Amino acid sequence: MLKIGVIGCGYWGPNLIRNFINLKDAQVKTASDLSENRLKHMNRLYPSLAVTVDYKDIINDPEIDAVVIATPVSTHYELAVEAIKAGKHVFCEKPLTSKVDEGIKLVSLADKAGKTLMVGHTFVYTAAVNKVRDLIKSGELGDVYYISTSRVNLGLFQDDINVVWDLAPHDVSIMNYILESRPVSVSAVGYSYIQPKIQDVAFVTLRYPGSILANLQVSWLNPNKIRATTVVGSRKMLVYDDISSLEKIRIYDKGVDVIPHYDTFGEFQLSYRYGDISIPKLDDAEPLKIECQHFLDCINGKTPRSGGKHGLEVLLALDAIDRSMAANGAEIKIEYPESLA
Amino acid sequence: MLKIGVIGCGYWGPNLIRNFINLKDAQVKTASDLSENRLKHMNRLYPSLAVTVDYKDIINDPEIDAVVIATPVSTHYELAVEAIKAGKHVFCEKPLTSKVDEGIKLVSLADKAGKTLMVGHTFVYTAAVNKVRDLIKSGELGDVYYISTSRVNLGLFQDDINVVWDLAPHDVSIMNYILESRPVSVSAVGYSYIQPKIQDVAFVTLRYPGSILANLQVSWLNPNKIRATTVVGSRKMLVYDDISSLEKIRIYDKGVDVIPHYDTFGEFQLSYRYGDISIPKLDDAEPLKIECQHFLDCINGKTPRSGGKHGLEVLLALDAIDRSMAANGAEIKIEYPESLA
Amino acid sequence: MLKIGVIGCGYWGPNLIRNFINLKDAQVKTASDLSENRLKHMNRLYPSLAVTVDYKDIINDPEIDAVVIATPVSTHYELAVEAIKAGKHVFCEKPLTSKVDEGIKLVSLADKAGKTLMVGHTFVYTAAVNKVRDLIKSGELGDVYYISTSRVNLGLFQDDINVVWDLAPHDVSIMNYILESRPVSVSAVGYSYIQPKIQDVAFVTLRYPGSILANLQVSWLNPNKIRATTVVGSRKMLVYDDISSLEKIRIYDKGVDVIPHYDTFGEFQLSYRYGDISIPKLDDAEPLKIECQHFLDCINGKTPRSGGKHGLEVLLALDAIDRSMAANGAEIKIEYPESLA
Amino acid sequence: MLKIGVIGCGYWGPNLIRNFINLKDAQVKTASDLSENRLKHMNRLYPSLAVTVDYKDIINDPEIDAVVIATPVSTHYELAVEAIKAGKHVFCEKPLTSKVDEGIKLVSLADKAGKTLMVGHTFVYTAAVNKVRDLIKSGELGDVYYISTSRVNLGLFQDDINVVWDLAPHDVSIMNYILESRPVSVSAVGYSYIQPKIQDVAFVTLRYPGSILANLQVSWLNPNKIRATTVVGSRKMLVYDDISSLEKIRIYDKGVDVIPHYDTFGEFQLSYRYGDISIPKLDDAEPLKIECQHFLDCINGKTPRSGGKHGLEVLLALDAIDRSMAANGAEIKIEYPESLA
Repeated sequence: MLKIGVIGCGYWGPNLIRNFINLKDAQVKTASDLSENRLKHMNRLYPSLAVTVDYKDIINDPEIDAVVIATPVSTHYELAVEAIKAGKHVFCEKPLTSKVDEGIKLVSLADKAGKTLMVGHTFVYTAAVNKVRDLIKSGELGDVYYISTSRVNLGLFQDDINVVWDLAPHDVSIMNYILESRPVSVSAVGYSYIQPKIQDVAFVTLRYPGSILANLQVSWLNPNKIRATTVVGSRKMLVYDDISSLEKIRIYDKGVDVIPHYDTFGEFQLSYRYGDISIPKLDDAEPLKIECQHFLDCINGKTPRSGGKHGLEVLLALDAIDRSMAANGAEIKIEYPESLA
Repeated sequence: MLKIGVIGCGYWGPNLIRNFINLKDAQVKTASDLSENRLKHMNRLYPSLAVTVDYKDIINDPEIDAVVIATPVSTHYELAVEAIKAGKHVFCEKPLTSKVDEGIKLVSLADKAGKTLMVGHTFVYTAAVNKVRDLIKSGELGDVYYISTSRVNLGLFQDDINVVWDLAPHDVSIMNYILESRPVSVSAVGYSYIQPKIQDVAFVTLRYPGSILANLQVSWLNPNKIRATTVVGSRKMLVYDDISSLEKIRIYDKGVDVIPHYDTFGEFQLSYRYGDISIPKLDDAEPLKIECQHFLDCINGKTPRSGGKHGLEVLLALDAIDRSMAANGAEIKIEYPESLA
Repeated sequence: MLKIGVIGCGYWGPNLIRNFINLKDAQVKTASDLSENRLKHMNRLYPSLAVTVDYKDIINDPEIDAVVIATPVSTHYELAVEAIKAGKHVFCEKPLTSKVDEGIKLVSLADKAGKTLMVGHTFVYTAAVNKVRDLIKSGELGDVYYISTSRVNLGLFQDDINVVWDLAPHDVSIMNYILESRPVSVSAVGYSYIQPKIQDVAFVTLRYPGSILANLQVSWLNPNKIRATTVVGSRKMLVYDDISSLEKIRIYDKGVDVIPHYDTFGEFQLSYRYGDISIPKLDDAEPLKIECQHFLDCINGKTPRSGGKHGLEVLLALDAIDRSMAANGAEIKIEYPESLA
Repeated sequence: MLKIGVIGCGYWGPNLIRNFINLKDAQVKTASDLSENRLKHMNRLYPSLAVTVDYKDIINDPEIDAVVIATPVSTHYELAVEAIKAGKHVFCEKPLTSKVDEGIKLVSLADKAGKTLMVGHTFVYTAAVNKVRDLIKSGELGDVYYISTSRVNLGLFQDDINVVWDLAPHDVSIMNYILESRPVSVSAVGYSYIQPKIQDVAFVTLRYPGSILANLQVSWLNPNKIRATTVVGSRKMLVYDDISSLEKIRIYDKGVDVIPHYDTFGEFQLSYRYGDISIPKLDDAEPLKIECQHFLDCINGKTPRSGGKHGLEVLLALDAIDRSMAANGAEIKIEYPESLA
């Protein structure tokens, strides 16, 4: 039975604890947080869980095999480095680190140490994203022309990272995964409406090989939560709406593209659709459960679907987006280090 | 009773004919089209309508007071010039002309001739767009931060203009109208998937005074027709969905922006919304009827809501979008001629 | 070219006039209405149309081949009898007559006279209703278990007929048509909230052969317009939403009917759906155009899809619903006359 | 700290255990189930929970203050009687018992023993149902005319109770609660499509004082899960859709009820809506948590919102529905025993 320590019991940590506890092959031994209150709360929920305000109790515990890091992004690098150096496997929340060079060093360190480094890009473990990937790989959509995605909601304003680093990791991770590719350049426009210098809205266009465009809209200012991704292909298109509980994916058949002459407003109103729509049934499993199980499987030899390299490729795109925003939308090429070749 | 001649009975012309015929103060005397078939069809519908393959029969008819131009955009300039020189008022479908300098000359010509020049930017005559404008002007939304709009559908690919010139005139016209402003610069990325050199998809960000961003997505490749505009303000936001027949405008109250800690996936699922939503009742009138009546009113002295200057401002934005796409998204400033100062 | 006279230019008559005028093989010669105002309006729209306040000008015109009756239901019987006796074919708006015995006599009269008698049950000419019928006939739904339908909206309260006679003719017509059957008995509860003795809400259950139940809800008191029909079969079910312009029919695949044990509220939330959904593309044609053309075809020998007998079967069901409402929901058998055997 | 024993760890029991465990003032000491497997599962989730296959271990445990019964309905009566006789407070899942006379005896027993008897009618603890009740009580809807509700989904076919006893307890409980009233008679039609003599579909009309009708549709045969309640009042109406996570309640303002003449199909399409719609923000709290806390509060002196009498009134309605179905829809009066006067 693998023993796990969790650092950070704030926003996301409790979900990770709950899921790892429910897995058969793992035991969550210790959780740490700087807040005594959060620790008390965790203890009420899980009386058998050890809690501590000092994360070093986890790092230094020889019984603990793997460390889960669910702390603010600026702390990821140091915590992960310490854990790997202490011989632990690491599951780190996304984004992997707050700086590209830290990401490169961390991936390299894990590689050399032979330890599993996995990043919490949860979406690649959802039934919906895997269905989208399958539809692309199987050719059902034809050639992918472009992808357009909105990830907007009201706040949870952060003071250390902008909206791109908060929300776009999901989209870049999803798109790299479903396209089995990575962007070559980016043009992006953003603006800081609420806090100086921290963009809360951004409009981003990534260019993938094969002339595939991926347009991202991310915002902390939109009271109406949207998580919608449209994939337009030469044969069909799909809309993946992650907010919908019942109809996450809609596939639109492409129909005749001729709009006839019409003589009344009424006939015009009727001419909006072009083909059948289908809404496939998806599995109901909680993706976080699958992700947590996958981490255990990777410790036992599997290759992580969202390993350090995947996380690092996401970082490189985020960094390029920042630079294009600084240049008012001018195109920025993304250079991948040799280790990602 | 004003007498009207209509040039062009293809896609949109019949709607203009039907609406002008139904107005009390106007009579449609003559319609022209290059296709005998279209003319026969118009004659079946309106037996009292004179038809001709030669548009000069309209231009040269001294009984005709006003000319409606519903032909391909490349012909707008010459037809409008001829009509104004013949002493007619002109209603011209959008976009006003296919080139900026033609637009400037045409507006100037109409000015000097003292003739009404109106452009068929129909959306500024809809109840929905006027409701959006009112909500902004009244301060109900607070300060406008940004606008995001999608105008996408399957084809009607054109071989003389790209998707920006086909669809974005609506959006630029709407945004200039609701913001009572005009953009200062633009960054845009587009691509030509189907026909060489004619973009069929574009992602555009316009910058308006006061740090307002307007993001446009236009596409001919999307089988799911969308016409959605989101306006995010400091107090509220709204979504204007022109496809919805019953609920075109939804206004979202901004609520508390703190997302609490949660310990189960279920509680997380429940935390999506932030305030009340309201869906105002809108008038049902056909906008084209209002627009056509407005043209008559303008001939009788009113100032057109979508006059030549409005149409020209739209042209200038379209032209700048083209240039930014050619520069891979680099920012292009929009220079307005003195006549629009 | 068939010549047509239309009696009644109120609510629905103008739609019939417009459609018959647009057909190639017919000419609308004369329209009558008791209101001079309505006649003036019709004349503005169709200058070549003769108008009269005296419907006898239509009945007595030997040039007129067919009479279209779009007057209040209480006048249908006498007008139709006069028209048939004058040798005309008759298209009569629904319901056929306001009394069962009048319906029986009228159908018999038309039969003997060898004239086409067609009732304006427009829904059987829609692409959606025919798609539903096809899905049932082809066996795609399996055995039909039950049908449930809501036809509710805000008033247009009538003072001569109740909500059952106003709205349920559509549903009974649709259900008899899609099931190719007719009900054997009915249980119904209704209530008169606004006008004494005229029910404005009714809940109706019709029993069809083969243990098929059809539940109808009709109301004049519901500000939210609904026209939804659910057909539940042993293999699949469908929902036909006539308000939706884009997605009128949704077909639900039946899936596994076992709900698993679950331990968190979140997993529970995820377990709502059971199979794929498909939304077939339907034709956009205006059903009234098809219906009007069908009337012409029937005059030329075809058997009407919604002929007098169909209309009479609907009447018999409406009459039985009235009697069950009077008996507080007690079951009332429907007796069909021999002429409908 | 109150000590609780839970009998039954099948479908719903685990949710009750999870919620009681998370409350500050209670401790779940023991859980029983006939299945060793279920007990093992519960033990994995809650290592400190005692488990047993013999429910008498709970009944006979003097430390346990209250018993939660989440077993099949046919066992409720005997288990509840034993628990009360052993001096425990009882929380029993709905419906209270499977027979009316058992319900009467049980309520009387709890009364005499001075013990809290609460029934798990969870919906009266939801934010949505309480919002509906408030809107009715405050007069915002005007006089309630009628209520129409659909509670349909695919199976979980039961072999001891029919669909009315499975699903309608929710609706009757909700309607009695929001109307602060109880039905006087019922007309109902049902049918058994799958299992002989166990209705899987029913259409029910309850009559409440003041001429309020409540129409219920319950079904195990509908693959599309629906939980929708419409309340039509003289001033406004509302739709409460329990499936929607974001927009559970929509309030429709009543508008002008005149539909104008129209001459084209298009104008007709536009005339569907009649007033503003508003969608109030609701609390996100898990209702089961509130219900469980309420049970503790009732043990400490509060009057249960869904106590034995509420549960018994529901039983009496269910019993009357059964009898009306047996009589093909004939009206059945509901007699309330003196203890409920």
